[in-house]
Amino acid sequence: MFEVTRYATAAQSIVEAGRLLYERGWSPATSSNYSARIDSNHVAITVSGRHKGQLGAGDVMVVDMEGLPVQSNAKASAETLLHTVVYQLFPDVGAVLHTHSVKATVLSRLIAPGAALELEDYELQKAFSGVATHEGVVSVPVFDNTQDIPALAAQSRDWFSAHPEQPGYLIRGHGLYTWGATMADCLRHIEAFEFLFECELETMRVRS
Amino acid sequence: MFEVTRYATAAQSIVEAGRLLYERGWSPATSSNYSARIDSNHVAITVSGRHKGQLGAGDVMVVDMEGLPVQSNAKASAETLLHTVVYQLFPDVGAVLHTHSVKATVLSRLIAPGAALELEDYELQKAFSGVATHEGVVSVPVFDNTQDIPALAAQSRDWFSAHPEQPGYLIRGHGLYTWGATMADCLRHIEAFEFLFECELETMRVRS
Amino acid sequence: MFEVTRYATAAQSIVEAGRLLYERGWSPATSSNYSARIDSNHVAITVSGRHKGQLGAGDVMVVDMEGLPVQSNAKASAETLLHTVVYQLFPDVGAVLHTHSVKATVLSRLIAPGAALELEDYELQKAFSGVATHEGVVSVPVFDNTQDIPALAAQSRDWFSAHPEQPGYLIRGHGLYTWGATMADCLRHIEAFEFLFECELETMRVRS
Amino acid sequence: MFEVTRYATAAQSIVEAGRLLYERGWSPATSSNYSARIDSNHVAITVSGRHKGQLGAGDVMVVDMEGLPVQSNAKASAETLLHTVVYQLFPDVGAVLHTHSVKATVLSRLIAPGAALELEDYELQKAFSGVATHEGVVSVPVFDNTQDIPALAAQSRDWFSAHPEQPGYLIRGHGLYTWGATMADCLRHIEAFEFLFECELETMRVRS
Repeated sequence: MFEVTRYATAAQSIVEAGRLLYERGWSPATSSNYSARIDSNHVAITVSGRHKGQLGAGDVMVVDMEGLPVQSNAKASAETLLHTVVYQLFPDVGAVLHTHSVKATVLSRLIAPGAALELEDYELQKAFSGVATHEGVVSVPVFDNTQDIPALAAQSRDWFSAHPEQPGYLIRGHGLYTWGATMADCLRHIEAFEFLFECELETMRVRS
Repeated sequence: MFEVTRYATAAQSIVEAGRLLYERGWSPATSSNYSARIDSNHVAITVSGRHKGQLGAGDVMVVDMEGLPVQSNAKASAETLLHTVVYQLFPDVGAVLHTHSVKATVLSRLIAPGAALELEDYELQKAFSGVATHEGVVSVPVFDNTQDIPALAAQSRDWFSAHPEQPGYLIRGHGLYTWGATMADCLRHIEAFEFLFECELETMRVRS
Repeated sequence: MFEVTRYATAAQSIVEAGRLLYERGWSPATSSNYSARIDSNHVAITVSGRHKGQLGAGDVMVVDMEGLPVQSNAKASAETLLHTVVYQLFPDVGAVLHTHSVKATVLSRLIAPGAALELEDYELQKAFSGVATHEGVVSVPVFDNTQDIPALAAQSRDWFSAHPEQPGYLIRGHGLYTWGATMADCLRHIEAFEFLFECELETMRVRS
Repeated sequence: MFEVTRYATAAQSIVEAGRLLYERGWSPATSSNYSARIDSNHVAITVSGRHKGQLGAGDVMVVDMEGLPVQSNAKASAETLLHTVVYQLFPDVGAVLHTHSVKATVLSRLIAPGAALELEDYELQKAFSGVATHEGVVSVPVFDNTQDIPALAAQSRDWFSAHPEQPGYLIRGHGLYTWGATMADCLRHIEAFEFLFECELETMRVRS
């Protein structure tokens, strides 16, 4: 059982995030899924297949940490387990956002298999929680895309158990996962990632 | 004869689609035309030459399945037959949108004559109705541009009779045609196509 | 003497055009100037140096066909003669817009001296008044930039006397001039030009 | 002591600038900082780490010309000294804006160490206060990024003491600093710089 007003607050933060992310073009064509923690056992998460710029009452359901619906007949996003893995791994995380931008999609397809995207010497790296200088490296792993979500969930759990300080990951040809203590932190991470993806692609364009 | 409120509903969906598509830059300079099915014999369609971001009462007329005006003195879009062919071919289609984006225009000019644009390994392919995985191929034929619309109508009828599962086509240097069971489905297809066109062009930019 | 309400109507069309053009990014940093014909001897035109997205009462003055202020102490745009030349040459023209976009600026610097930008096989060429097919060529001359406006006015008069069917011109590293029978026609021309400039640049990007 | 209503007016100009700059994508992810002069000894400046599109009462504090807080317990931006140096150097400057755009970031990383970005033959150079023709050169120095702000403050003071006519500078991989007599002048400079950065990058893209 969960506190209902905590669900309502989490759902509202998701609805508002959807409006922002759709407007930016990062959640087109009913893609993407978003979640916010209710408590240690429950997560509010978008129902599968909804228009992310037009979320309303009825578009955010509750799942437990195994990704099973709680008090709901709706179908949770196919990628629910990729969210719950993050909440289980990091007790301080309050929100997880998964977006599908052109930049994330293209860049993830250009990175060589097995390699990570390495971001360095950008002042904007300081937008990631815990980063205080441009002089370090932010490593963004790129996992191969698959429709086998439990396998992807296990892969992400393993990688972030070993690299808990890193702020997110890419799925090849698919999109970005990132998280934060609050929804505002998580949105800041999305903005920072999209900025840095654009910088990387722009540099490739003029250097190619 | 058609049910008047079905016309009014169809017309409203067209007006709203126009506002969205113009704002995105996909229907500039009075280009593009849109339609929605009224019944098995009638289609609501934009009057020729109107500003697509400012459609209002008087900008959506009715045609029959041969593209002839019904209860109207207005001039239907020159490309009306390209719409009615789709409705005749697919009884479940409720809306057809034709847009003119920079990406569709440029990409269609870069594809070799006779070749199709092939989209694969993109998670966003799942935005097309009936596609459940990124592992297939979406084939987008590119027809040569012509002012001879009946010829183009026949060409599109032949191609989609043979490939009914494909979601749309390009006309070289001109634009995109796509459709869906509802206007919302059709708009989702436009968004998915534009996303994928941008991905293809961005990849070409950084690899050139 | 001019009819005052004709001035007011012309000024309003300029204010509204400014809002649209600034929002699109085509008139940044107080650049650009716009005009609309009042009658055969008078033109409403933007006062020099105003923010084009925030035009209001007081930002549109009147000049005669020699570009001299009428009933005004304000300073007309430095490029006023480039407007009046068009009105003198084409009695049917009701509006002239000059914009400074990134695309117009960059493309005009890439065209070889003495050459014109030639646009062909684009369906959107039909957005220009009098063009009925994609199969012709729209020729856009590129004049070298200069602060000597009377010289540029003479150059544009000579070129368009010889090519009255062409819809506009570029000044190198500076911007676009186009016109139309009404302000709506002129705005449609701007949209069409910007679309086609973007197509040309995008093609250069992926082919370079 | 400072005149309170001068603080309030300065703060309001900062809040409004933030809304504009965030919307343009030039101050993402809580980056950037803005200031406006109150009097010869006091400057209103953004509190560290706030969302620049959502600034409100409580997000603009006061510092003196050494960058020390006045009547405030808030933490000023880490880069406060880069602002006060400009006010000390130029008594006529009323506003300083520091932004983080993709274009400024990428371009500043592409300029060779020790070199300046040189802008010439652009009509839009006339948007910078004191520039009357496209025929001169605007020189934009690129300082290496560092977390040692006093060192960067000294470097910028030295360079602009020698080149007081130049309108701004870049920090490599970080962003742009520019200023003006009023906030409107300063915003015009930002727009002009971003326009010119985009022109330079676009030219590199199509020529690479």
